[in-house]
Amino acid sequence: MLGDMWQPPIGGLSAKPLSGPIAINFWHNSSPCRTIKNQLFVNSISMASGATVETATAPKWAQKTVTIPAQRRGCHLITSKILKEIGQDLSEIKCGLAHFFLHHTSASLTINENYDSDVRDDTEAFLNRVVPEGRSAPWKHTLEGPDDMPAHIKSSMFGCSLTIPITNGKLNMGTWQGIWLCEHRDAATPRKVVVTLNGI
Amino acid sequence: MLGDMWQPPIGGLSAKPLSGPIAINFWHNSSPCRTIKNQLFVNSISMASGATVETATAPKWAQKTVTIPAQRRGCHLITSKILKEIGQDLSEIKCGLAHFFLHHTSASLTINENYDSDVRDDTEAFLNRVVPEGRSAPWKHTLEGPDDMPAHIKSSMFGCSLTIPITNGKLNMGTWQGIWLCEHRDAATPRKVVVTLNGI
Amino acid sequence: MLGDMWQPPIGGLSAKPLSGPIAINFWHNSSPCRTIKNQLFVNSISMASGATVETATAPKWAQKTVTIPAQRRGCHLITSKILKEIGQDLSEIKCGLAHFFLHHTSASLTINENYDSDVRDDTEAFLNRVVPEGRSAPWKHTLEGPDDMPAHIKSSMFGCSLTIPITNGKLNMGTWQGIWLCEHRDAATPRKVVVTLNGI
Repeated sequence: MLGDMWQPPIGGLSAKPLSGPIAINFWHNSSPCRTIKNQLFVNSISMASGATVETATAPKWAQKTVTIPAQRRGCHLITSKILKEIGQDLSEIKCGLAHFFLHHTSASLTINENYDSDVRDDTEAFLNRVVPEGRSAPWKHTLEGPDDMPAHIKSSMFGCSLTIPITNGKLNMGTWQGIWLCEHRDAATPRKVVVTLNGI
Repeated sequence: MLGDMWQPPIGGLSAKPLSGPIAINFWHNSSPCRTIKNQLFVNSISMASGATVETATAPKWAQKTVTIPAQRRGCHLITSKILKEIGQDLSEIKCGLAHFFLHHTSASLTINENYDSDVRDDTEAFLNRVVPEGRSAPWKHTLEGPDDMPAHIKSSMFGCSLTIPITNGKLNMGTWQGIWLCEHRDAATPRKVVVTLNGI
Repeated sequence: MLGDMWQPPIGGLSAKPLSGPIAINFWHNSSPCRTIKNQLFVNSISMASGATVETATAPKWAQKTVTIPAQRRGCHLITSKILKEIGQDLSEIKCGLAHFFLHHTSASLTINENYDSDVRDDTEAFLNRVVPEGRSAPWKHTLEGPDDMPAHIKSSMFGCSLTIPITNGKLNMGTWQGIWLCEHRDAATPRKVVVTLNGI
């Protein structure tokens, strides 16, 4: 229970606590989040009277646009590129969420296997198999080339955004998970990703 | 670094700062977010002693259920309908996230091209091609009509929720991106979207 | 407008309010969120001088790793399993978002129909139909068995994460919506889901 975690302020201030119940709940004793309870989130202030009151720090918000250089058509592991850009800011957040939003409708972001490049090649092969392209395709929208309408469809199939938990200053992904940028166009262009970090 | 951004309070209050490091990090000097650092997020209070202390405003949370009128089967651009409902509240948030959650299992939300309606028609054509319907379909769940089970599948393919960054009071999407409601049933009904805004 | 909701502090403290405008906006009078404005989010403190100042409680953050026992290949409704693990903590949040992140690349999370198990069986049949497996499949990545590469593709099709609004202490889903874990491997293993709750 949240209420159980509230610690009354030390000192003699004739006041109710500055904040209500400590506004965070840590389920796991072993969670790295637990260690921040008295370091980051809860602040202690000394009043002129000599009293001390605890209060809560507001969560952090950070937002950045990261540009991924042009990639050939296919699926690409971009975890390290992303972390290079946001790693330091990420390290300031103990518990939170990282949101990644691609600014395009002919590419996609997904999370998948981070080791064998065959998985990325096979996924590209699947996309090309399930979405018809060229003479066999029934598309009306063809002005921008035969790969354009398939690119739009693939973008909605995999989606253009990701949300990943942040734990102890890092993206909390599974051992084999990585962030993929899937480029669905033949003509490569740089792709913008708006990254939003939020947490404590 | 977050800590670099902390400015000690002006004045002679014999107290540690009311909050810790300023709980926001702006990566880009050119970011519209930067302009709000001293306007919205950081507040200054004057104590009876004449001292001034800076503190942080808690993030905003807002939640609303928006009803989209019944649309014919197919993909529909609903960005303007959504913005009409949430635009004013959105304008109060400089940095944050907007979450959209469709309350249904036979329609979907996706982000795709906002200009040529052929893209929406072709996407509907793709969905009908990839998910069998009618006599050729192997579905067991047919009590609600031949379009029902295909609708459930399409809903999971495209998903029922979106998260979009908020920057400077607006949805931060790419030039060609729009919000689509994809109606997968033949019999049109109004669709509910729970919108949750969070930010500073 | 957010500003309209600010109530000046009661009492004679010679200070500007400790926080700025109340950092929450409730669109609907009937929203369950409204009832918490003066209970949870806004706190009142009494100063030694006898003055009272209102301040804002920081949002709650909570994070937990839930393990779902091994499920056979196919789609499984896990709403009740999830709620059993997070229900009590969820009940502490009036307005917010719940994020679920699967730590694997050969299973997926999706939201779909919560009643007829035929819908889950038909969805599994669709996935097996659209993603080739075995001798007809063109995959290069086959070392871990014929079901491995199809599992990776299905994981990106449906995705490995969900974000669901929280309203009045509960997941705010539609009547017929439930959380599905889709197991795409033949050899069942337990699956980890990182749950992050954020709200007020």
